Amino acid sequence: MGRDGTPAAAPAVRITAEKLADKQHEISVTEFFEKNKQVLGFDSRTKSLLMGVKEAVDNSLDACEESEFLPDIIVKITNTGEEEYKVSIEDNGPGIVHRAMPNVFGRLLYGSRFHALRQSRGQQGIGISATVMFANISTGRPAHVASKTEGLDAVAWEMDIAVDTKTNRPVVTNDKAFSWAGKEHGTLIEYVTKGRYIRGSQSIFEYLKETAIVNPHARIEFHDPDGKTYVFERATDTMPHKAKEIKPHPKGMEIGDMMNYSSMSEEKTVKDFLKNDFCRMTPRLADEICTKAKIDPKSSPRDLGREGSMALIKGIGEVKIMDPPSECLSPIGDVLIKKGLMHTLEGMRPEYYATPVTRSPKAVNGNPFTVEAGIIYGGDIPADGQVTLMRFANRVPLLYQQGADVITKAVGEVDWRRYGLEQRGGKGLPYGPAIILVHVASTKVPFTSEGKEAIATFPEIEEEIIAALKLCARNLKSHLNKMDKKSKTHEKFDIVQGILPDLAKKVAEQLGKPVPDLSQTISKIMNVVWIEPVKERIDGGRRISYDIYNYTVRPHSFMIHLQIPAECMNDTITGGAFFDSAKEDGKSQWLIKDLPASTSVRISFELRGDMADTFDPDDVYISGINPVMVMGAESLPGDWGIKGMKITESEDDYIQDTSDEEEEEAEALEEEEFEKEADE
Amino acid sequence: MGRDGTPAAAPAVRITAEKLADKQHEISVTEFFEKNKQVLGFDSRTKSLLMGVKEAVDNSLDACEESEFLPDIIVKITNTGEEEYKVSIEDNGPGIVHRAMPNVFGRLLYGSRFHALRQSRGQQGIGISATVMFANISTGRPAHVASKTEGLDAVAWEMDIAVDTKTNRPVVTNDKAFSWAGKEHGTLIEYVTKGRYIRGSQSIFEYLKETAIVNPHARIEFHDPDGKTYVFERATDTMPHKAKEIKPHPKGMEIGDMMNYSSMSEEKTVKDFLKNDFCRMTPRLADEICTKAKIDPKSSPRDLGREGSMALIKGIGEVKIMDPPSECLSPIGDVLIKKGLMHTLEGMRPEYYATPVTRSPKAVNGNPFTVEAGIIYGGDIPADGQVTLMRFANRVPLLYQQGADVITKAVGEVDWRRYGLEQRGGKGLPYGPAIILVHVASTKVPFTSEGKEAIATFPEIEEEIIAALKLCARNLKSHLNKMDKKSKTHEKFDIVQGILPDLAKKVAEQLGKPVPDLSQTISKIMNVVWIEPVKERIDGGRRISYDIYNYTVRPHSFMIHLQIPAECMNDTITGGAFFDSAKEDGKSQWLIKDLPASTSVRISFELRGDMADTFDPDDVYISGINPVMVMGAESLPGDWGIKGMKITESEDDYIQDTSDEEEEEAEALEEEEFEKEADE
Repeated sequence: MGRDGTPAAAPAVRITAEKLADKQHEISVTEFFEKNKQVLGFDSRTKSLLMGVKEAVDNSLDACEESEFLPDIIVKITNTGEEEYKVSIEDNGPGIVHRAMPNVFGRLLYGSRFHALRQSRGQQGIGISATVMFANISTGRPAHVASKTEGLDAVAWEMDIAVDTKTNRPVVTNDKAFSWAGKEHGTLIEYVTKGRYIRGSQSIFEYLKETAIVNPHARIEFHDPDGKTYVFERATDTMPHKAKEIKPHPKGMEIGDMMNYSSMSEEKTVKDFLKNDFCRMTPRLADEICTKAKIDPKSSPRDLGREGSMALIKGIGEVKIMDPPSECLSPIGDVLIKKGLMHTLEGMRPEYYATPVTRSPKAVNGNPFTVEAGIIYGGDIPADGQVTLMRFANRVPLLYQQGADVITKAVGEVDWRRYGLEQRGGKGLPYGPAIILVHVASTKVPFTSEGKEAIATFPEIEEEIIAALKLCARNLKSHLNKMDKKSKTHEKFDIVQGILPDLAKKVAEQLGKPVPDLSQTISKIMNVVWIEPVKERIDGGRRISYDIYNYTVRPHSFMIHLQIPAECMNDTITGGAFFDSAKEDGKSQWLIKDLPASTSVRISFELRGDMADTFDPDDVYISGINPVMVMGAESLPGDWGIKGMKITESEDDYIQDTSDEEEEEAEALEEEEFEKEADE
Repeated sequence: MGRDGTPAAAPAVRITAEKLADKQHEISVTEFFEKNKQVLGFDSRTKSLLMGVKEAVDNSLDACEESEFLPDIIVKITNTGEEEYKVSIEDNGPGIVHRAMPNVFGRLLYGSRFHALRQSRGQQGIGISATVMFANISTGRPAHVASKTEGLDAVAWEMDIAVDTKTNRPVVTNDKAFSWAGKEHGTLIEYVTKGRYIRGSQSIFEYLKETAIVNPHARIEFHDPDGKTYVFERATDTMPHKAKEIKPHPKGMEIGDMMNYSSMSEEKTVKDFLKNDFCRMTPRLADEICTKAKIDPKSSPRDLGREGSMALIKGIGEVKIMDPPSECLSPIGDVLIKKGLMHTLEGMRPEYYATPVTRSPKAVNGNPFTVEAGIIYGGDIPADGQVTLMRFANRVPLLYQQGADVITKAVGEVDWRRYGLEQRGGKGLPYGPAIILVHVASTKVPFTSEGKEAIATFPEIEEEIIAALKLCARNLKSHLNKMDKKSKTHEKFDIVQGILPDLAKKVAEQLGKPVPDLSQTISKIMNVVWIEPVKERIDGGRRISYDIYNYTVRPHSFMIHLQIPAECMNDTITGGAFFDSAKEDGKSQWLIKDLPASTSVRISFELRGDMADTFDPDDVYISGINPVMVMGAESLPGDWGIKGMKITESEDDYIQDTSDEEEEEAEALEEEEFEKEADE
């Protein structure tokens, strides 16, 4: 009987099994993706056009950052036929050496960033070659690529590249050197593809805009099919913190990985293997692990095998190891997040910017990641629909597949009703006038598919997002509370201010007596120091003023503290009345000395530039006076890193009003319970 | 200067470009998926455990159906350590010949169904080998595989298989023949993997249950980790319609595909190439296309090249070609859809089953697909939350990634407020006591990722789903209207029935006269034939009765028509009073002859078995009498394929009541407008 077990007996069954066996064969990775274009995001004409630009621009930004050039990117799209476009993307990156060009553009699963433990946009070595492949499939035309790695005098190389979908190998034609006039270094890719050009929320323009926002060190020029040119100018000349490559983190490693690492290690001993092939390891730690694993530190890592590797993993699990270093990541940062949120507004003036949050890095499957979040609220942001969600992964905007994204899930897990937003059953995207931005940065973002459109639901990541969102949401809530309290006191104040004088006037008339001065009386009733912000638009910015009334029966001295956006500091501030001092980060303070009873003063200054709108005039802090008797300001928070002014007055002047504290306690408690739930 | 363009000049830049070039290298497909397990659905321990079972069972079902064995599948899961389980799946399929076993289980992108244009569960050649790979990575253990393709007397083969993640090749150990006692043919796979076993909505049990529902020809036995055994018995011995392989459809082909097909064709002439390599083509059509494309039908397809292929595609675009044949698909069918919906209820008694809809096949990128949908409503289904969505693709239940699925999107696009469900802003998943089932069957389901958890949003598919849902929703709406109308008339009836007799009694007493018989009077006022269903539970089924009152002033004859589920026909029906006749599909009718004025009769029968609950007692149809004077029944619809009884009575007996028609017209109109909107 044949070794394939197929003698003459039992025909029906055997033949079928045989038939099946004959049908079995290898599927080339290119064929596979060709037949499953949707996993790469090339499922519709509209998306295909965007994906190509996205992959090319992401690569350009990565390359420029790796070799520390300030990116200069030109995207050009021209209509060349019915649903057919010519797309060209040119950068000023380091260029690609001649021998590497074919594989980079003409071969799937080929790249430089796949194995690197470092935040980068492209990680799979699929994107750009897939773009070339699908363009080629849709129009039959190869892509044209040119690159230059030299100084001004030297030669550049250009060639036409297609992907052989049967073999996944580049097909190169017209390979020749040329002199690229005026080009120092950089790469150009040009291809013709079937596509549909759209405007609006999921357009190429939108992608480039959001990209420019979170990559302010890049200059991006966009020539659209109608011949219009848009330029997103470079907002800063300082490169973002460069993400450094790190070694894998020993925690959370699968036995299979460990077996691979150990068998491939070049170290002589297990101790050195642990010490040198992983991050966050010390000789002491290495020894400790070996002891716990009952493995001789001097034995060779290549002899570990399954049992040994398993013991090692157990050992690693039993020791404390620092979280992975954050140098491999490059977060956006709160300033840019505010900017990012602002740019989506296009004229809408939000009422409040919650201070953005950047979480400290954690690791999932040995891949460090960090989460950032920001919220803006109110103003002209439409209040009837669901909140707008802005998603970013490794500084790349995510425009599609919102429903599949862990970010969306996390937002839906937060009970926004506690934070002043409407939400049916406390689940799902909330409704209300808010825009929420979330950025996930990681050495390997776990996308749900090769299209890199949505982040998979890893519990570790979801928890971090929820935590970040809650912090933002808390700021929002306390702002809303503040506004609420203020308007209540306003009423009381208006009554006192309005009715008493009328009353006095009438009485005086009837008695034929002069109208008495009531300010003392009013002060007695109010007994507060009142700080009232006044907001005005002036061209190129805003004028912010604060009217400070002393509605008490005695003079007061105190310090007023404001967080001015650093970019907006100017001499209308530092030169203004009562100005005391400012720190580099824009934290500024004004000194009000002996403000007499029943009198008022005004602080006033101007804010100009991009960030002017991110300043919240209602965020006022005071020191040197008991906060319970101040309306319109909170007591200086500890995290400002300064003491502020000491309170000299005695307690008994004050009508103690504890309602606020109770309120806040209650909230805090609620919160805690909430956290508990969340943790369960 | 070297061809790679790297002389001695401009170091900084060049070196970087060089460095980058050196980092460039190939990524093996196995490495790629190992580092991106989430795209295969192996992102969490819980999911990994399910995915493995899913891939194995899907393969078993495919294999059994291909060789036409009624599937017998045994799934066994045993806990072997902390978060570690041994999983074994055994089937009675055709078996796998010895030489094929290593590649089938030990090599990614290797399979038999990838190129076949035919509905099947596995299509990618990834699932089962990925399962073997991840099990191996998580525990370091290879999978154990056994298979037999022979008659009782012959030998079976077993071996241990692992995947070499560097080379994507199987690593086989312990390869040996053995005699598989009592096994005629089939395959067993057994592996140990890290995992977390859960119960509930996304559990293995749920997956097996839903699989059994839509594959009633399969027997599935499940031994869970607690040692409990669940058996989903075979519900039918007839195999589902076998999906036949078809040739590609010429419409909507990319130029690249056409160039591939033509260059690889074995036909001598372009005409034969068109005629024989594609489906739905005739000699006449082939000629017509050649003429339109200005291509000589006698020229060789291999000489077409880019221009020729493009011309051909243009030509194909200009001729009418039939939609692809449906024989390549195997829909679930309305009976099973109803069953499917029923099984999710677990005791909840819904008020209404909308008749399930199966759409005729369309094609997307040359891949035929069809959509089926069903809705159940009311009863004990919770009314406060969002509706429950059941998603199936090629008879496989989809338990994850609901948010990413075109089905979810399509459901959200329907304005359910028009159909009696609550929905904020007419978008998104509606709220209310309903369960919606949607099945997409295709020769190539465009999943959003290799994990096959969600279907990508192709406009063609979305439209079909929306159309199917609207049809179901319409049935639902007209049911809700009917119920509404009925309850209104009930009130009127109760008043007449209740108050008049009291009135008469009182009057009679006062006048010292006998109480008069009011039935005539009531009849005059009501002037309807009243048909009132009575629903009772009896053990093993339900008793359905209809009380038929003639509240008119003269006798009437008419026919009552009911759609009894074919499975439920029995002699309590055929043998019951007034029974007239029934068709095979369960359409039955009762003849009421000369029912005297102010009298009533009762029809009664029992329904038993699975489908008893799918019968809607409120779906009553009549003929032989003007429907406007009947309460509780509609006039016999045309699609019943029978004439029904002729109306002999003259119109003028009736108080015409046109309100209903107006109502329905208005709705119809609304509907149309709605459709228009949708189409835009």
